[in-house]
Amino acid sequence: MAQPVIGLLGGGQLGRMLCEAAGPLGIQIAVLDAENCPAKQANHNDLHVTGSFKDPAKIKELAARCDFLTVEIEHVDTEILEEIATKGFEAQDANGKTIKKTIPVHPSWKTIRLIQDKYQQKEYFIQKGIPVAKQMAIQSDSDDARKASLQEAAVKFGLPFMLKGSKGSYDGRGNFKIRSPQDFEVAAKEMGNQPLYAEKWVPFEMELAVMVMRTEDDDGKLIKASPYPVVETIHEDSICTKVFFPPRKVSDDVKARAQKVACDVVSNLWGRGVFAVEMFLLKDGHILVNEVAPRPHNSGHYTIEAVPQMSQYKAQLCSILNTVPDDLALVPRVPSSLMVNILGGAQPTSHDRLVDLTRTMGSSSLDVYLHQYGKESKPGRKIGHITAVGYSSIQRLEQLSRPLITACDEIRAERVGEAVAPHDESKFKGVPLVAVTMGSDSDLTVMSAGLKVLDDFGVPYEVRITSAHRTPELMSAFAAEVSKGGVKVIIAGAGGAAHLPGMISSETHLPVIGVPVKASVLDGVDSLYSIVQMPRGVPCATIGINNSTNAALEAIRILGTSYPEYAERMKAYQRGLKTDVYAKDRKLQAHGWKAYLQEMNAKK
Amino acid sequence: MAQPVIGLLGGGQLGRMLCEAAGPLGIQIAVLDAENCPAKQANHNDLHVTGSFKDPAKIKELAARCDFLTVEIEHVDTEILEEIATKGFEAQDANGKTIKKTIPVHPSWKTIRLIQDKYQQKEYFIQKGIPVAKQMAIQSDSDDARKASLQEAAVKFGLPFMLKGSKGSYDGRGNFKIRSPQDFEVAAKEMGNQPLYAEKWVPFEMELAVMVMRTEDDDGKLIKASPYPVVETIHEDSICTKVFFPPRKVSDDVKARAQKVACDVVSNLWGRGVFAVEMFLLKDGHILVNEVAPRPHNSGHYTIEAVPQMSQYKAQLCSILNTVPDDLALVPRVPSSLMVNILGGAQPTSHDRLVDLTRTMGSSSLDVYLHQYGKESKPGRKIGHITAVGYSSIQRLEQLSRPLITACDEIRAERVGEAVAPHDESKFKGVPLVAVTMGSDSDLTVMSAGLKVLDDFGVPYEVRITSAHRTPELMSAFAAEVSKGGVKVIIAGAGGAAHLPGMISSETHLPVIGVPVKASVLDGVDSLYSIVQMPRGVPCATIGINNSTNAALEAIRILGTSYPEYAERMKAYQRGLKTDVYAKDRKLQAHGWKAYLQEMNAKK
Repeated sequence: MAQPVIGLLGGGQLGRMLCEAAGPLGIQIAVLDAENCPAKQANHNDLHVTGSFKDPAKIKELAARCDFLTVEIEHVDTEILEEIATKGFEAQDANGKTIKKTIPVHPSWKTIRLIQDKYQQKEYFIQKGIPVAKQMAIQSDSDDARKASLQEAAVKFGLPFMLKGSKGSYDGRGNFKIRSPQDFEVAAKEMGNQPLYAEKWVPFEMELAVMVMRTEDDDGKLIKASPYPVVETIHEDSICTKVFFPPRKVSDDVKARAQKVACDVVSNLWGRGVFAVEMFLLKDGHILVNEVAPRPHNSGHYTIEAVPQMSQYKAQLCSILNTVPDDLALVPRVPSSLMVNILGGAQPTSHDRLVDLTRTMGSSSLDVYLHQYGKESKPGRKIGHITAVGYSSIQRLEQLSRPLITACDEIRAERVGEAVAPHDESKFKGVPLVAVTMGSDSDLTVMSAGLKVLDDFGVPYEVRITSAHRTPELMSAFAAEVSKGGVKVIIAGAGGAAHLPGMISSETHLPVIGVPVKASVLDGVDSLYSIVQMPRGVPCATIGINNSTNAALEAIRILGTSYPEYAERMKAYQRGLKTDVYAKDRKLQAHGWKAYLQEMNAKK
Repeated sequence: MAQPVIGLLGGGQLGRMLCEAAGPLGIQIAVLDAENCPAKQANHNDLHVTGSFKDPAKIKELAARCDFLTVEIEHVDTEILEEIATKGFEAQDANGKTIKKTIPVHPSWKTIRLIQDKYQQKEYFIQKGIPVAKQMAIQSDSDDARKASLQEAAVKFGLPFMLKGSKGSYDGRGNFKIRSPQDFEVAAKEMGNQPLYAEKWVPFEMELAVMVMRTEDDDGKLIKASPYPVVETIHEDSICTKVFFPPRKVSDDVKARAQKVACDVVSNLWGRGVFAVEMFLLKDGHILVNEVAPRPHNSGHYTIEAVPQMSQYKAQLCSILNTVPDDLALVPRVPSSLMVNILGGAQPTSHDRLVDLTRTMGSSSLDVYLHQYGKESKPGRKIGHITAVGYSSIQRLEQLSRPLITACDEIRAERVGEAVAPHDESKFKGVPLVAVTMGSDSDLTVMSAGLKVLDDFGVPYEVRITSAHRTPELMSAFAAEVSKGGVKVIIAGAGGAAHLPGMISSETHLPVIGVPVKASVLDGVDSLYSIVQMPRGVPCATIGINNSTNAALEAIRILGTSYPEYAERMKAYQRGLKTDVYAKDRKLQAHGWKAYLQEMNAKK
């Protein structure tokens, strides 16, 4: 079957990873870029064009041999792309005759043109009801006009505010933070003679990003904007350095809203492909769109391993060719992943230690994937990335990946001449997988045995007192909160008319394990019956009276159904139980029962 | 960091996938093969050599620019490899001066030489205590000598037996099944003038294969032979067409023995890299080694997706470079996978439908990965493969992959001019996520309510009667079997001295939900206490007396922790419960309690 050819403007690392995805799929890519660019190293054919992706003649030469055109960078001449997609350009047909040809350009030249002007882009988003930071254009006809305009911005937005160039900025270049009126002149000088705009300073809690795959029919009608999961991005020196999936401390509600905002953005753009939407999460929970990239993006590299069935690169290809399965959901196939960029260090060999780490760090709880781009190392240059994949929470993965993170930080510190910020261990407390609650602090003694088991198995958990009778509203809020994400199992202990476990079960879809705590009368039977005899429809898995140990073990068995790591620890624990009994039996055989009993009694 | 260069003899699909793995790792591969061979399409550099991997001069040209040499095919000249690895060959140094150079060859030329002679290879295995089929060399000095020798084999092994060429056979070519003395002459003619041997006919149940990664220090001392999981391979027309991981009906014991045998084989060979060991599983459970390939192999393609942290290709590279992490286990990261080869069909476009399927079949339960090799289609030629990955049992995956299997079978049928064998649906029952068991059929009435809930939620389950007291061995076997994979939760119901749920819990690491069934006396309290009051260490999550509905709902909540699909259904169910009660209250308000009660009583 003759596959259509996709022409690609630019052959850097994004193009290279696009080629790596295309190869096994039998999709032909023709790359326009220098002879030995990263993409061409991974894809050899006689369709490539040697030259600059900014050269109109070369772009047309490429287009002449392709069925589709796409980009790995948005800083391209959209006039040419518009001509190729709509008006037609001159090409030779099979007989060498010159004909007019048009081919589809994805994403659309319209999208790329809009994205190139950051001010216009955000005006457009405002018009479409998408949340962005407040902005105003800065006059630059004369120094006086600019100064007046900056003054106006300072009044309107307060200080500090951001002064940004509308066009051509990339990886944070072309941004200036105005802290005081003294900065006006310096900023004007630094930013040069380009269209500028002022943006309200947004003190954000965290940066989030969502990749979105956009499919569209041949008439340019949107089929679907499908979001990938939300990630947390870390920027240093205005370069993305780390990406956490899932974000470390973000509620399901925020995640859902971030995906919604990202899809709204991409639904309002044009053409097929993947799009990165970078956002700020504010202290008050609001989300603002910061940047949009109409192409595969650093924040989506993790999808190669985390969403392998449809990485951002495969999605770019399949959406362009319109071969995305109808019911495909971009669901991750692993619970957590961390991407770190390999940035060139102070020395050409500075990053070697990072590469070396990828050869030793793999284990049963952690996979480490190296991606080198075939680029020469220069200080601060993106020459590769590493994706670590974990089989439990992102907090656990972050812990396991500490050597990678430390190496990145140290290489950066050496490069920029700074000291490495000390690592704050307290920030890395695991987000709970198990929530433990009890009706009263008098239950804590009984429940503590289970908490110790959770500690022993390395299960992150939280403990709360939420009385069904005295704080019904707190109990409901607790059940609702823990049901949102992260927590997989709830353990609830209560005594007497022990309603807490069952009531919690009514408020959650999660499995609930009830621990009947023996109260002052009836020997715990009251507690047991109150917990176990739930009405049909609302189950509560009940454990023996006072046996919080078993509640914790049951919770770990449940975790084991999704985290192989815990299943393995449970098996090891069970082998331990066996070994203990065998050892006791051997001792009993060796010493005789009388001596054994004597020793036992002596220990009491 | 200057990476060593690995020279590769042969640039077919194995070489291509090796290059695909090497690229992101920054490992340089120099390929000796034709200009546009599959491997060179995926890897462009100025180290490649154009020519035949059988040409001694070209091999030396390649070796001159490499630090290691490896192969993607075993039909290579081992004299040259021995010279390169031990005696040294003439190469030019950086100043153009001719020097003697030796470089390591992995796997060793000794291994390749042994593998090339299938008779000698098996004699060696026999000597090392590795199980193989009985064999004897066939004299071929004259027609009479050959005839006598064949006669001797017929007496020794019975009829039928296999006549095999010792050298140069590949994908089953060079084998002849001797059914009667009449075949002697035909066989002699067909096999031509080559060294022959006879092999006892082995009627096998199933073909198994294990890839093994062999690491070795620089002195040639074995470090470790690490097995991948066992797979089941299907051969048609003497070509591997399908690979099932895990095998569909094979006990853990057989799997462990197959891995052991494979490691024994590979431990007794020489050099680094991955090795395929193909085996026969006989009816009586014995395992015989059939073939060994000292290189990546068709039966290991599934590792690209199923063991992504160390696919067979990455393992080949890392073992050659001696950069395998110490504690790396080749554990699969998915529960099941199925590989089918794309073989060229009767028409050059026959296989297109198979490729098309990969574009539509992906879903939340199934990932489909296409690998095209950049080869022209010819009837029966391996031009690509497809790996499907499933998230529960291999049986469920096989069911989901039915369209792929059917398309393969139909393309083959068209090519060889046969009818497609009808598909036996009964073999493809979904593998359970929940296992339900009870001590006696008298419990079935109570348990049936829960089974209906599982049906309503679309949960695949199995139901067994396994009495703790009457069939303790069946109960243990059941618990061991369901703990192996697929099943995530066990529900066990029992009455009276209800030991089954707790005993099952002792035999598994999975969460167990116990249903106390009310027996003839004590109103079910005996059952409840027997189930809930488990000793510390072995938890059993207990549900209200006779309440199998809640047991099923609890099981579904647990499934919801790893399958979002079930969490969503549980939420919807809980909304339904709410709606029901609201509706009843509205009705009560509307009709008054007397009419309501009357209607209720009338329904009874």
